[in-house]
Amino acid sequence: MSASTVTLVGVPLSPFVRKVATCLLNKGMDYDNDPVLPLSLPEGFEKISPLRKIPVLIDGDLVLPDSSVICEYLEDIRPQPAMLPSDPKDRAHARFLEEVADTKLVENTAPIFIERFVHAVVLKQEPDLARAEKAERDTLPPVLDYLESQVPVTGLLFGDYLCTADIALLSPLLNARYGGFEVSSERWPQLAAYLKRVEAHPVVAEVLARERAFAQTLAA
Amino acid sequence: MSASTVTLVGVPLSPFVRKVATCLLNKGMDYDNDPVLPLSLPEGFEKISPLRKIPVLIDGDLVLPDSSVICEYLEDIRPQPAMLPSDPKDRAHARFLEEVADTKLVENTAPIFIERFVHAVVLKQEPDLARAEKAERDTLPPVLDYLESQVPVTGLLFGDYLCTADIALLSPLLNARYGGFEVSSERWPQLAAYLKRVEAHPVVAEVLARERAFAQTLAA
Repeated sequence: MSASTVTLVGVPLSPFVRKVATCLLNKGMDYDNDPVLPLSLPEGFEKISPLRKIPVLIDGDLVLPDSSVICEYLEDIRPQPAMLPSDPKDRAHARFLEEVADTKLVENTAPIFIERFVHAVVLKQEPDLARAEKAERDTLPPVLDYLESQVPVTGLLFGDYLCTADIALLSPLLNARYGGFEVSSERWPQLAAYLKRVEAHPVVAEVLARERAFAQTLAA
Repeated sequence: MSASTVTLVGVPLSPFVRKVATCLLNKGMDYDNDPVLPLSLPEGFEKISPLRKIPVLIDGDLVLPDSSVICEYLEDIRPQPAMLPSDPKDRAHARFLEEVADTKLVENTAPIFIERFVHAVVLKQEPDLARAEKAERDTLPPVLDYLESQVPVTGLLFGDYLCTADIALLSPLLNARYGGFEVSSERWPQLAAYLKRVEAHPVVAEVLARERAFAQTLAA
């Protein structure tokens, strides 16, 4: 796979695009980004993404949708550096945490991101602030309580290397930050400290630097 | 993993439980079944399944939720017979079809199964027949149109061996059958013929034989 031919389709602020971008860079594969927005998909988008979701990875005649499928594919074609643990039970736990991140964590951070940032700041529409408030107060905290019990006191999930599940867990919470939400280090001390360690990983820092410039154009 | 100690938690009529049951038997691992119903989960179920979903695989101190995570785990610990293709692009396509099955296909067959079978036959409640009708008429056909373009003219998805995606695709359509829906061999000839081949696989036939006795007690 030549670095210059890989295209990552999807706006860099998507938690799923950010996950794949991080896996690509961590495995030494650079990418061009086509920042397609989920709210205005190009006509015929289902031809490259049958579920009409971002991201899609395009590499020559390979067209691959679904962030988890893409990350498993990257692990298959470029096993080093590994982003899944080698022990089968650990691998299963990593995949389960990725699933929790991609479902419950995304579902309960999305209202904060969409109402307070996408609607209020980007689209300059009337936001449904009650919807964001409900997520922040009622539905997100139980997910964070669960994660507080799952993350390590030191290092990343499975030691000192970056796992797909690490970026999957951080990614939706970066979206919540666009809506002014931070994981409280008083209420969830272990999780907050862990997320800081993931965010400080040099590859994650590089992905976030690329994203920042794009986000500023959106909020202009 | 000793056969006698593995417990598959979840009612056998769940499309996700059926998927895991098939993978277990296909890999030569027998299981006890604990037929927990999604509508009446035991108290504290989130301790073994944080997303409160079935199935859960229990093997000694290993407690593993999520059907896709379980099937990947089984592939990791018992690679033969393989239920994922070896080519990375094929593996990615298999995982994507499994994702389509587990999301769009389940979502659009569930109303048919739940209203016409669970509500009408099992619980003897007033079913919302309009909801089932809408799925059958409007939302399920586009998914079947897509699958008609994806399945092979002969054999199973990746040749003559059973892949996790094969059973994932059949499984929700078996649920729709409880609600009286059959994939029309006139409208979707390639898909209908393919599904018959998956259903005729001896391991699938064994899983369905076990399920039948349980289903009859439900409908009594």
